[in-house]
Amino acid sequence: MQVWFTEDQTPNLRISVRVRQVLHQERSAYQEVMVLDTVEFGRMLVLDDVIQTSQKDEFAYHEMMAHVPLFAHPDPRRVLVIGGGDGGVLREVLRHPTVEEAHMAEIDPQVVEAARRFLPELNDFDNPRARVFFTDGIRHVEEHPEAYDVIIVDSTDPVGPAVALFGTEFHRAVFRALRPGGIFVQQSESPFFNRDLIRRVQASLRSVFPVAGLYWGVVPTYPGGFWTYSVATRGTDPRRPREGAWEAAGLRTRYYTPDVHRAAFALPPFVAELLEPAPAVEPAPGGGAGSPEAGAGNGTPPGAGTAQVAL
Amino acid sequence: MQVWFTEDQTPNLRISVRVRQVLHQERSAYQEVMVLDTVEFGRMLVLDDVIQTSQKDEFAYHEMMAHVPLFAHPDPRRVLVIGGGDGGVLREVLRHPTVEEAHMAEIDPQVVEAARRFLPELNDFDNPRARVFFTDGIRHVEEHPEAYDVIIVDSTDPVGPAVALFGTEFHRAVFRALRPGGIFVQQSESPFFNRDLIRRVQASLRSVFPVAGLYWGVVPTYPGGFWTYSVATRGTDPRRPREGAWEAAGLRTRYYTPDVHRAAFALPPFVAELLEPAPAVEPAPGGGAGSPEAGAGNGTPPGAGTAQVAL
Repeated sequence: MQVWFTEDQTPNLRISVRVRQVLHQERSAYQEVMVLDTVEFGRMLVLDDVIQTSQKDEFAYHEMMAHVPLFAHPDPRRVLVIGGGDGGVLREVLRHPTVEEAHMAEIDPQVVEAARRFLPELNDFDNPRARVFFTDGIRHVEEHPEAYDVIIVDSTDPVGPAVALFGTEFHRAVFRALRPGGIFVQQSESPFFNRDLIRRVQASLRSVFPVAGLYWGVVPTYPGGFWTYSVATRGTDPRRPREGAWEAAGLRTRYYTPDVHRAAFALPPFVAELLEPAPAVEPAPGGGAGSPEAGAGNGTPPGAGTAQVAL
Repeated sequence: MQVWFTEDQTPNLRISVRVRQVLHQERSAYQEVMVLDTVEFGRMLVLDDVIQTSQKDEFAYHEMMAHVPLFAHPDPRRVLVIGGGDGGVLREVLRHPTVEEAHMAEIDPQVVEAARRFLPELNDFDNPRARVFFTDGIRHVEEHPEAYDVIIVDSTDPVGPAVALFGTEFHRAVFRALRPGGIFVQQSESPFFNRDLIRRVQASLRSVFPVAGLYWGVVPTYPGGFWTYSVATRGTDPRRPREGAWEAAGLRTRYYTPDVHRAAFALPPFVAELLEPAPAVEPAPGGGAGSPEAGAGNGTPPGAGTAQVAL
């Protein structure tokens, strides 16, 4: 059957997958939500014609998003996922026995509805420890100071409403929403095709957090396959899974292991160079103790000039 | 300009790149040789409509093919590249100061000619330490017993003439062509799309070599991006770059570092499971001291029953 879905991964690069059936297609308040049954990847969630996840390769992305921060954190009890409406990251978070509450802040209820109906093995929304907020992720973190041990942003590409999730204003709000020792992770695209974005995100995280860095993994349905996860913490070293936690959790995974965790921080030089402070990075506007948002009584992001660790 | 080259990566998955110009197109005795100028990846070598390499991402593949075995080997002096007619692996091999002679056995002179003309920065064919043999790689290894410290197979996909390069007969010939401690590497495709092939190659290498394993890296223009390199040695541990060699060589690389080398052997479980001996693997026919080829006075591959190390 010659029905193909084609994504323009860049203006000059396309991926096409053979489609058995279009299972679902609707326009929500935010985007076009589509679920395809593809021959190569099984069922696939597509938002505004961009592949989000598929049954065949979802484990690679969701495991690396969830398990790196949750195994690096000394005691992750409260976790927030922003975006991630398919439920895959939340499902992996809920596999951790230390987690008491896992929240998801997803702006689009129709993504969650489509995932529940067509990709049920990707999610665990009815888990008693899970709670889904249909809200703007930025507002949610602003309204929840010192509330979370781990915050994970599983967003769409940085176009439209997702743009703000890659900016310093948001990173400062995340800092304040984290408890001491807290860890923040966000998907930060490809070092082959989105080099400026990665540089900007890294510079922003360095301006807000005492520890910032990047790890990587492969997602076959994303442009170029080589995908980055930007990470920043309130002090915790994200590179080291905590001793004995993997064995205690007893997870059966397909991508993550503690060795893979450590290895994911070994950066090829063409990636590592994106983490170096550029000579002319502007200091974050309003950063530090004098920033307007710092009055909420939360942890205060270190401003420019604070000693910082770039991994 | 709406000119696109499309590769069928699988029957159900396509990649398309926008083409500025078709620089070269001819039919050799073995295949269709094409060089495209693409917007996203720069110049690109395409054989029988399959992308082989491009200016933008060639470093990722060529560095991992060459530097892992050459930095793991205690003293690599004579190196053979089979295939690799674009010259990229040979170029990386020649950057090693220990290497006295680097041979390439490429069956198709027209690939080398096209690479010389259109991708000159990929190759270093006129280096006085380099020698190109236009010959069948299998015959070449059979005719050169105990001749090489490192043998690298940079082949096309396992269809047509390349099929034999993934078989046990060839692996036994490679074993004999290696000196003691020698290392063999071959590209072995994707763990998402070529799982049976990887299993077969690994079983074959285990049946011939005392040490066999696999490492991985990313090549954006290959299906799924996640690419494997199967490795086997006459005793050397390929996982550890030799102490001080990286610093002594002073290479400027974009993908390889000693940390990346070690990390490349950290296998996600969905890959590691391909290395496990299947319950019903047949012993290699004629393997061991009684094999017809063992009479050449070379090293004898250990037969079934020999203690072996799978990494």
